[in-house]
Amino acid sequence: MARTRKEPDPRFWKLNRSVSFDTRLAPYDVRQSRVHLGELSRIGVISEDDARSLDAALQVVAAEFDAESFEFIARDEDIHMAIERRLGEICGTDVAGRLHTGRSRNDQVATDLAMFTADRADRAALLLADVQAEILRLARDHAGDPLPGYTHLQRAQPVYLGHHLMAYFWMFGRDRRRFEAARAASSVLPLGSGAMAGINWDIDRDRLAGELGFDSVSPNSIDGVSNRDFALDYLAAASICASHLSRLGSELVLWSSTEFGFVRLDEGFTSGSSIMPQKQNPDSAELLRAKSGRVTADFQALISVLHGLPLTYSKDLQEDKEPLFDAADTIEASLEMLVGMLEGIEFLTEEMVLASADEMLAATEIADMLVRKGLPFREAHSVVGVLVRLCLESGRSLSELGEDELKAVSDLLDAEYFAVLKQDNWLESKRTSGGTSRVSLESQFELAESHLDRTGDDPS
Amino acid sequence: MARTRKEPDPRFWKLNRSVSFDTRLAPYDVRQSRVHLGELSRIGVISEDDARSLDAALQVVAAEFDAESFEFIARDEDIHMAIERRLGEICGTDVAGRLHTGRSRNDQVATDLAMFTADRADRAALLLADVQAEILRLARDHAGDPLPGYTHLQRAQPVYLGHHLMAYFWMFGRDRRRFEAARAASSVLPLGSGAMAGINWDIDRDRLAGELGFDSVSPNSIDGVSNRDFALDYLAAASICASHLSRLGSELVLWSSTEFGFVRLDEGFTSGSSIMPQKQNPDSAELLRAKSGRVTADFQALISVLHGLPLTYSKDLQEDKEPLFDAADTIEASLEMLVGMLEGIEFLTEEMVLASADEMLAATEIADMLVRKGLPFREAHSVVGVLVRLCLESGRSLSELGEDELKAVSDLLDAEYFAVLKQDNWLESKRTSGGTSRVSLESQFELAESHLDRTGDDPS
Amino acid sequence: MARTRKEPDPRFWKLNRSVSFDTRLAPYDVRQSRVHLGELSRIGVISEDDARSLDAALQVVAAEFDAESFEFIARDEDIHMAIERRLGEICGTDVAGRLHTGRSRNDQVATDLAMFTADRADRAALLLADVQAEILRLARDHAGDPLPGYTHLQRAQPVYLGHHLMAYFWMFGRDRRRFEAARAASSVLPLGSGAMAGINWDIDRDRLAGELGFDSVSPNSIDGVSNRDFALDYLAAASICASHLSRLGSELVLWSSTEFGFVRLDEGFTSGSSIMPQKQNPDSAELLRAKSGRVTADFQALISVLHGLPLTYSKDLQEDKEPLFDAADTIEASLEMLVGMLEGIEFLTEEMVLASADEMLAATEIADMLVRKGLPFREAHSVVGVLVRLCLESGRSLSELGEDELKAVSDLLDAEYFAVLKQDNWLESKRTSGGTSRVSLESQFELAESHLDRTGDDPS
Amino acid sequence: MARTRKEPDPRFWKLNRSVSFDTRLAPYDVRQSRVHLGELSRIGVISEDDARSLDAALQVVAAEFDAESFEFIARDEDIHMAIERRLGEICGTDVAGRLHTGRSRNDQVATDLAMFTADRADRAALLLADVQAEILRLARDHAGDPLPGYTHLQRAQPVYLGHHLMAYFWMFGRDRRRFEAARAASSVLPLGSGAMAGINWDIDRDRLAGELGFDSVSPNSIDGVSNRDFALDYLAAASICASHLSRLGSELVLWSSTEFGFVRLDEGFTSGSSIMPQKQNPDSAELLRAKSGRVTADFQALISVLHGLPLTYSKDLQEDKEPLFDAADTIEASLEMLVGMLEGIEFLTEEMVLASADEMLAATEIADMLVRKGLPFREAHSVVGVLVRLCLESGRSLSELGEDELKAVSDLLDAEYFAVLKQDNWLESKRTSGGTSRVSLESQFELAESHLDRTGDDPS
Repeated sequence: MARTRKEPDPRFWKLNRSVSFDTRLAPYDVRQSRVHLGELSRIGVISEDDARSLDAALQVVAAEFDAESFEFIARDEDIHMAIERRLGEICGTDVAGRLHTGRSRNDQVATDLAMFTADRADRAALLLADVQAEILRLARDHAGDPLPGYTHLQRAQPVYLGHHLMAYFWMFGRDRRRFEAARAASSVLPLGSGAMAGINWDIDRDRLAGELGFDSVSPNSIDGVSNRDFALDYLAAASICASHLSRLGSELVLWSSTEFGFVRLDEGFTSGSSIMPQKQNPDSAELLRAKSGRVTADFQALISVLHGLPLTYSKDLQEDKEPLFDAADTIEASLEMLVGMLEGIEFLTEEMVLASADEMLAATEIADMLVRKGLPFREAHSVVGVLVRLCLESGRSLSELGEDELKAVSDLLDAEYFAVLKQDNWLESKRTSGGTSRVSLESQFELAESHLDRTGDDPS
Repeated sequence: MARTRKEPDPRFWKLNRSVSFDTRLAPYDVRQSRVHLGELSRIGVISEDDARSLDAALQVVAAEFDAESFEFIARDEDIHMAIERRLGEICGTDVAGRLHTGRSRNDQVATDLAMFTADRADRAALLLADVQAEILRLARDHAGDPLPGYTHLQRAQPVYLGHHLMAYFWMFGRDRRRFEAARAASSVLPLGSGAMAGINWDIDRDRLAGELGFDSVSPNSIDGVSNRDFALDYLAAASICASHLSRLGSELVLWSSTEFGFVRLDEGFTSGSSIMPQKQNPDSAELLRAKSGRVTADFQALISVLHGLPLTYSKDLQEDKEPLFDAADTIEASLEMLVGMLEGIEFLTEEMVLASADEMLAATEIADMLVRKGLPFREAHSVVGVLVRLCLESGRSLSELGEDELKAVSDLLDAEYFAVLKQDNWLESKRTSGGTSRVSLESQFELAESHLDRTGDDPS
Repeated sequence: MARTRKEPDPRFWKLNRSVSFDTRLAPYDVRQSRVHLGELSRIGVISEDDARSLDAALQVVAAEFDAESFEFIARDEDIHMAIERRLGEICGTDVAGRLHTGRSRNDQVATDLAMFTADRADRAALLLADVQAEILRLARDHAGDPLPGYTHLQRAQPVYLGHHLMAYFWMFGRDRRRFEAARAASSVLPLGSGAMAGINWDIDRDRLAGELGFDSVSPNSIDGVSNRDFALDYLAAASICASHLSRLGSELVLWSSTEFGFVRLDEGFTSGSSIMPQKQNPDSAELLRAKSGRVTADFQALISVLHGLPLTYSKDLQEDKEPLFDAADTIEASLEMLVGMLEGIEFLTEEMVLASADEMLAATEIADMLVRKGLPFREAHSVVGVLVRLCLESGRSLSELGEDELKAVSDLLDAEYFAVLKQDNWLESKRTSGGTSRVSLESQFELAESHLDRTGDDPS
Repeated sequence: MARTRKEPDPRFWKLNRSVSFDTRLAPYDVRQSRVHLGELSRIGVISEDDARSLDAALQVVAAEFDAESFEFIARDEDIHMAIERRLGEICGTDVAGRLHTGRSRNDQVATDLAMFTADRADRAALLLADVQAEILRLARDHAGDPLPGYTHLQRAQPVYLGHHLMAYFWMFGRDRRRFEAARAASSVLPLGSGAMAGINWDIDRDRLAGELGFDSVSPNSIDGVSNRDFALDYLAAASICASHLSRLGSELVLWSSTEFGFVRLDEGFTSGSSIMPQKQNPDSAELLRAKSGRVTADFQALISVLHGLPLTYSKDLQEDKEPLFDAADTIEASLEMLVGMLEGIEFLTEEMVLASADEMLAATEIADMLVRKGLPFREAHSVVGVLVRLCLESGRSLSELGEDELKAVSDLLDAEYFAVLKQDNWLESKRTSGGTSRVSLESQFELAESHLDRTGDDPS
């Protein structure tokens, strides 16, 4: 192109050529070109005849991509040049050569990428709503099934399984909000920024924005071509979402172990072993856990490229695509898989009941009882600590301690002590908002329902 | 604490103890405790006398932190236990021991951290508005000073310096929006989640939220204690902001070189050399450029900790603080420094004028002229490519080509060719919105003004 | 300094000043200066009198740092300038001003940092050898205690606990090798590179290297001042080591759970809960797990700074110190803590025996028996798969299947089937090198012993 | 496989199936299987007939991969199962089913990956030697061409271009050493570790190692299947190498600017603009600069996956491949491109001479002259600072200052002052080892030559 006469060296071309990955932008590029063409025609830069023939050619190209029959040639540098080359073959280079008026690859590729990002952010938000709906359904089903709650992976206090599941509902709700923000950030049109200074033609950028589904136009042409914030916003959202998926995956792996035995994944989401016939491995849960490293690395990859990069467009920005594509594919596939996992998941509630009947989980209840009887919390805590040691040393449970032993520790340990040790108290005592008690949980479900409805209407 | 009898091993204590860094949470912790105390008193769990004496003690502690006279002892595990220990010294352990009723360190530390994050997100947003105001001022001052615009660090098309500066205005505007989102994410109160299951007491969480300046309460106690999304939101915002600062720093370093010679930093923002007496180095700009690696690593550090971490609270979450503190300090110091740099910056507009008079910058203008005369853009581009080669080979500028030579290349190269080569055309032809022309730039200033006003009122 | 007249702006100074962290280089800086001084004196650039008085002053400074009585003033830009300023106070600026001859801060700081890195790489290697020795001791103690081996966190095949522990022995052995390589990379002396072009004086760099404990001198002055590879080598070694610690920490957390119940940490390495009196949390193991995010981020932080950084020295390189210091502190504290954890760790071998008696762990043994009887492995695998399903569906163990049932599945399932199901076969059948059988394990211990001895002599 | 009866869910399969990327391991897998088969045959587990027919089938498979005619089917989970399936088609499942005896996918895939890593580390080391040879050639060609050396991107002291180029020689030399270390780390054979406990058969692992080109066998089967350190070693080496390429790319971009004008890349390594006909952009240099973010992210991705991952094999480890493949492809393509760039690069030495004649670059020389006359260096530095200010304020060069003016500043500024200002002194005064003087540079070339020879013989 341009003043250069020499063919690109193959060693350079190998790294410079981007068609192996930017071909994914083809549908966006064609759509953009059709709208740009319309505007060039409207302002008289392209004749009606030429416009008609170019538009037809663009539709041919789109069809070829749909049919996966578009053929690249070795000299196609990127998807934009490949399409322009093909247009020339279809309607003559003379006509095709008019399309690039008032547009540079710099604003063109930024526009394609913004369109891609907006689309994928929408999809992620919708998938998250599906996941949330599944979680809410499961949580309702298990609103009354006790489970040991853990801190430090040590049994802490019992909770209802439904309450535990709802923690993920809210995590994914925040993820959805982030994708919606990334979508909004992608809704500022770069097209019309030209190479970097703006363009010479009377193009109406607001009209372009409207036709391409953007909310507004970039207010500065330099920023327009060098801005990749919207991709970073998507990648940050995806990274945080992947970290939530990783925590969930990790818990499902743990719960699938013989030792925990709290969950059985649907067989369709497990794998066998090549050598050990007894194995049924929770590969799907492991994959959920594993993918967060990769998605965060995608964010890392792009933001590193921007380190110290002078304005405006530099070739370095070619590195924006692969991390973004990879993160979008990974997040969507993970969320789709998760929906399936949740559909067929089986919680082994008997095992959970057994585990959550561990009286040690009531230790805080006893302490709180002592507080109600007047002890400062710290002293109550300490009194119960003594009881716990007594139990551990003598191999007994809290309710197996004798009344005399109790009195020896504290006068306040009376009959109410044994009453508190009845399990259903422990869960139902957490009645403040956000707590695990049935009544709080019901309120939580209602809040969740309204939260889901809200976004059901308007995912972006 | 609790059932443990043995003293912590010093090798464990060294890593476990967090007072060296979480002391920064002290003001938030005290404020939180005063509000929590008020609520315990209101619902009758703490007597009015005890509440009065505890509140007074809390104010003493706050004063000690203000005066930097608070003394830690070796057994203080973290800021929360240190304060509780100190309260015991002031008003007796019996009274002090009542404060931890209905609260766990798990929800306590999450609340402190959310308060910290909200505060610092506000500060970052305000500093960004200051930076934007400085940029807008400078951009207005240089609304008519031409500068070569660059792509690939090659001279591309001339722009006004004011237009170039405004690119940063919009970048920092997006950063502000991100900090505002992080602030909103920090406005959900964890307090009242207890250890993880909720609490046994009739505490009114909405009231707590109101008094502590939160917008709402966390809807799920498990999520309440294990959620660090708001910190990630802050860190993602800070990372992207730091990448913008890095790009600006890089340009200022470049422009400070003898070769570019476009800018002179105020001496108060430069350093000399220990050995070379002639040097005046743009250290401040280099620091702006350098810090993005660090801030992104802060995001990386926290999100890695969450990889595969089961719910709810685990000690791993102690790693949330240092990256967050570091990022907040770095971003604020960078933004403050930038305000100072911009106040005293001097643009060497004569050098810029000289550089932007390079006729090669008009190549696209010539091509556009040929398009107006009917050539397809691609052909026009190719014609000008020939002219450029002619110039390079003969060491002449575009306007030094002869009429005959021009005609030999294309009939369309007539007198208008020479008219287009008059420099002021190149800038003023970019009249679409977002372009560099004076009229577009004026609209951009107005938009920017309204943008700044909007957030001047309500930074969060 | 130099041609600058204006005082540094406080907003710049806040970020520019590095004494808050580079003070840690003081001992190296003083040691370096004494050797540099010796060389300046040897070649006659500094008189014997001045050298004597400067050397005495340097020793005073060293003593002040040792006693933590060295006082910084606001104008001290970095540790190097602070020491030079202090030398001037002690022996007069006229004498002190001679020390910087033939040296720039650029080669000076690179030399300090290389000395620091060499030291800390040595320390890490020594601590790793301590950890390995503890592991080997424990592995020998538990050479005959069976444990279920896991893949996908599902029980796979039984192994001896000693064998499992030895996996970490080899991981830490590779880490040691990496730190040794980082040490070697730090043993190339930058001093004598001057600002970047070399120096004007007849300094004998090889002599400097010898006296400062370096192996060789940097062969190129430009590379000498801009090279930070040795720090990256340290950080990569630390990152990988931290990932090993993270895996070990994660297993200890898991094994400390009630559900697994395989290990009890020494109480001195656990923490209680602020609210739940029964809790004894494996905080030390959680910290081991958590720290890898931070250390990897340290690597990330430094390598990001180098992205696109032109040669030679730029202020950006100031960002080399904090990540390096943090990683070194974190790795050493983690390794020291780990030694302590291993000293007092208690494996609950009865629980492990119980878990590893699970007959499902013998499934591969049965398949291998069938292969010995002539079945292709894939078919054998499939036959055992049928048996496993039979067991799962009827709630029986493999040895509870009837002879008729077995024959119905395969003729080859004869009396040997029941013989294979006797547990001690499963472990002792793995007799190839590296396998878990006692005899293989003994060979492994011998290899480990020789590996440890080798490095006992020469840690670097 | 195994006890599972249900087909994998497509949503799971999409993420679980790895043939889209692990097909690259096919040649290694086939080679490994042939050697494993030989050993099974040698110890009599597989009959000679079966071995012969399996080996022939493996060669068919290899040929199909070579010819890119191997066809995957939807149920192929990974490359290993795909090959086993194909073997069954060729020589019957009865025979093919015998190959997996004494081997698990766990040790199989670890072995493939180690073979891949060893190969690619060798290739990277060889390419680095090619790059070094090109650099040495260029450096010799430009051993006498002066260039301004920069610190902080400010002109500092003149150096010979050859000296500047040699800085990269040594950087790439260290990279080569790192790839050699990664190669050594890949030379420990996992095969024979089985699923994780070792294997039941009398396989001679040392013999396997010898035939597959490994140096030794993994001493512990658990470590054997879960170790990915060698991949991390490769990725760390690649990250640091990419950071060197990034610095070189950045300098070439800078030097290609009109403002610097020090270099002209071969046209075959540049691109034109889609819109600006005058542009010739240094895309190849920009790509060198940009790729370091991506390669470091590859390291990040894998090490994150290992965070907290319990032993032994987990599905998470499937994430080891794509980052490794991507880094290897990127590094090799970058190094190959760089060789080409260096072959055709043109340094514009006249521009460099002009720039390096800037008398300010001699300021340190003047200071050193004053030191030789007895001034302490700090005072000399300060004296020259005054001269520099005089020049800047009056718009003169150092040699344009009058004798009286000089004397007014310092008595020691006599005729020698003007002698020192003659340019060739500035470069030739740096005679210590590693300095820029011709004599030092010649020694550096000799050292480099011997360094290259050493590795020319033995790249790994």
